Amino acid sequence: MVLIESKENKLYKETKKLKDRKGRNKSCKYIIEGFRLISEAFKANLSIEYIFLNSEGEEKLQSYLGDYIKEDIQMYKLSDRLLNDLCFTETPQGIVAVVEMNTLDIGFKGSFYLLCDKIQDPGNLGTIIRTAHAAGVDGIILTRGTVDVYNDKTIRATMGSLFHIPIIVDDENNTLIKELIDKGFSLLATSLAGDRNFFQEDLSGNIIISVGNEGNGVSEEIYKLSNKKVKVPMPGGAESLNVAIATSIILYEKVRQNQLNS
Amino acid sequence: MVLIESKENKLYKETKKLKDRKGRNKSCKYIIEGFRLISEAFKANLSIEYIFLNSEGEEKLQSYLGDYIKEDIQMYKLSDRLLNDLCFTETPQGIVAVVEMNTLDIGFKGSFYLLCDKIQDPGNLGTIIRTAHAAGVDGIILTRGTVDVYNDKTIRATMGSLFHIPIIVDDENNTLIKELIDKGFSLLATSLAGDRNFFQEDLSGNIIISVGNEGNGVSEEIYKLSNKKVKVPMPGGAESLNVAIATSIILYEKVRQNQLNS
Repeated sequence: MVLIESKENKLYKETKKLKDRKGRNKSCKYIIEGFRLISEAFKANLSIEYIFLNSEGEEKLQSYLGDYIKEDIQMYKLSDRLLNDLCFTETPQGIVAVVEMNTLDIGFKGSFYLLCDKIQDPGNLGTIIRTAHAAGVDGIILTRGTVDVYNDKTIRATMGSLFHIPIIVDDENNTLIKELIDKGFSLLATSLAGDRNFFQEDLSGNIIISVGNEGNGVSEEIYKLSNKKVKVPMPGGAESLNVAIATSIILYEKVRQNQLNS
Repeated sequence: MVLIESKENKLYKETKKLKDRKGRNKSCKYIIEGFRLISEAFKANLSIEYIFLNSEGEEKLQSYLGDYIKEDIQMYKLSDRLLNDLCFTETPQGIVAVVEMNTLDIGFKGSFYLLCDKIQDPGNLGTIIRTAHAAGVDGIILTRGTVDVYNDKTIRATMGSLFHIPIIVDDENNTLIKELIDKGFSLLATSLAGDRNFFQEDLSGNIIISVGNEGNGVSEEIYKLSNKKVKVPMPGGAESLNVAIATSIILYEKVRQNQLNS
């Protein structure tokens, strides 16, 4: 295993740039941290460019990743200090991997899409991606202004679901969304002022479910484009729901209706 | 306004003890932080024992809490250092209040309860409380071993819903749960190995919905006591859902069934 001892090492410096969104977007790569996520990445056949680990990571490598590590995977050993400088968690596990950004082709051959419209909190976005994967969403569309999918907190909250579901960022004119509507997709928007309760709406057929920003909800442009406007009722009187919660409730109403109709 | 300048001040020392679960349980009081939560506490008619603030908090007091601050509320001014030592957030707003623990009487006159069985993550518990409040749950029962409701992260995630819903901790023999079952309540347990999908189960009538620990799910004792065992299907193939998400999906299926039957 090659040893990297200097923080001036070229590969190390390149990798460190991936801690920022700008660096990630430039190279179309991102960092994942810890054995659990890396094994999920292997299971999902992700393109793993290389692995950095320290002594602790090296010790555990065989027991955690023994099934996946082949000779052609490039691994580099780092000092604790160098490795921890690449990590975001408070108790790093001694291993990070650099992978290519999600290259799953959204293709738009499915019937069930989720639109995240300017979600700001990385944990919320990650939880939404995890739930969308569970619910069988065919792909996720993000509007401009949504938090970065490759933010470390988002990645962690997806629990690996990020590797399994196509995700695409629309342009500032929402061209993709408009194309899908032209193709006959319904666009459902959730809002406190929705016309009807989510379970009163027919969610069958080709549909995009859109959910909005934590403070302001779905943006005006998306709201105007939508032809189904629903609310999640709050009979107990709370003022609002967490956006990941509201999203999940509606995604699972679609799952319920699908299974009843099948 | 009384000025407290020393960290040896008796009231200040008493308050500092409330940062730990042990101290909170001993005095049956807890700390809430920031203008938003404190105004929610006023709106909910909580018993506010006293308020600590620094210069920043004092400046904003009138605009944020002017409607609520009466002469009989005890307020103490602290230096930034003393006040920040009471806070958990990274950017404190310069105000904390000390309030009595939730004294809402659960009473068991309702028909819809939630049982949180050894939930570990404070953020998850807080989000669950917020959603339960929205869904119109009549009260929340916690098993022993569940994270403290008065943990600062839990309080923040409830967004004030903690002040509106009765919450009670059962004893180690689950006496309360057994009493409710004797009274004719159904006990629904969620598990990956549930018999049927949550939406195939009749959730009408008196019911307790139980949800379990992040890693292990509902404990064996609760699972054995339950007479409805359901799962949340994952047609997309993810391995699991976040517990707050799974809870919310099931609570809202009850809301849906209630509204259809009413």
